[in-house]
Amino acid sequence: MTPPDAFARLDAQVAFLLEADRLKQVLRATPLADGSRRENSGEHSWHLALHALVLADQAGPDVSIDRVIRMLILHDLVEIDVGDVPIHCANGQAHGSEATRAAETAAADRIFGLLPPEIGRDLRALWEEFEAAATPDSIFAKALDRVQPVLLNHAAGGGSWADYNVTLDQVESRVGVKVARGAPALWAHVRARIAPFFG
Amino acid sequence: MTPPDAFARLDAQVAFLLEADRLKQVLRATPLADGSRRENSGEHSWHLALHALVLADQAGPDVSIDRVIRMLILHDLVEIDVGDVPIHCANGQAHGSEATRAAETAAADRIFGLLPPEIGRDLRALWEEFEAAATPDSIFAKALDRVQPVLLNHAAGGGSWADYNVTLDQVESRVGVKVARGAPALWAHVRARIAPFFG
Repeated sequence: MTPPDAFARLDAQVAFLLEADRLKQVLRATPLADGSRRENSGEHSWHLALHALVLADQAGPDVSIDRVIRMLILHDLVEIDVGDVPIHCANGQAHGSEATRAAETAAADRIFGLLPPEIGRDLRALWEEFEAAATPDSIFAKALDRVQPVLLNHAAGGGSWADYNVTLDQVESRVGVKVARGAPALWAHVRARIAPFFG
Repeated sequence: MTPPDAFARLDAQVAFLLEADRLKQVLRATPLADGSRRENSGEHSWHLALHALVLADQAGPDVSIDRVIRMLILHDLVEIDVGDVPIHCANGQAHGSEATRAAETAAADRIFGLLPPEIGRDLRALWEEFEAAATPDSIFAKALDRVQPVLLNHAAGGGSWADYNVTLDQVESRVGVKVARGAPALWAHVRARIAPFFG
């Protein structure tokens, strides 16, 4: 028999996992590669983890790909409460605003707070490291989070670039700089790939 | 400047990642927890990776959670060509059949074959380890792959159990045995949780 406190602990773990299921219903600005519909933040998080596995050779020698993958699995959970704030909306001003950050902190309190305390603490620390983007692991994780929508927009023939009238200079300043910080050769490659789209 | 062979290598990595995007359009038999629609295999893979992070304490001491997460990220890629074969369809006989296995092997040849050879080899080896379910890591990964649909079906009020007229004994024999093999206390907990549904 499982002792009662182990049962309560598993109840909390399962409650968190069922709450996390809602991330599959948060829609992003970016379309799928074939343009058929918008991507959701659950499948986006999976795709990013796959990017980390496949593009591991683009990371510096001090990056732990396994920690990067853990961060990417968690990085969007706060969107269950806050929604996705597209990089290019509000002329690039809404993403990372003070108001957005405060709402995301409250969401992290609630969502990671569903877990048994020591698990919640560990996962929240990873999320905060990702948000701060000041360690090699989080800088590489951010680079992947920024480059994946570029690849999807390009594959889909414009995607959120068309929706928000984005220029190549804006892609460079809002996105490219952060990709290049964590994965410079990857950004050089992707920039060359997308430049013809902007004419 | 990136040398030409590095460019060709990145082209292959990006081609694989864009092909993998199609997993977001493979529908599973299981609904989301709120029953609003069927789950796709991309977001399912993310949810499983999150299960591994949150339920790590259910794994035996010889399990590497990071390898489990890597397996779970990859485990359904072959469904891009083969589709999802629900556990409970065809009275439980289609899943794992010879025909399904042969189709999945051909899919693995094609999909992992898009990658630079040494990356493709490494990822395919992880997928084969998952499929064989003979190591501590893959046995735990399989346990999570089997328990997550149980939690979603239960949360959604029946899901694919209702669609396929599944009994608790069938859940036990088709699913529970494999969950219990990798995570016995988890299965005891989940079984107690779902038993009342079957009356």
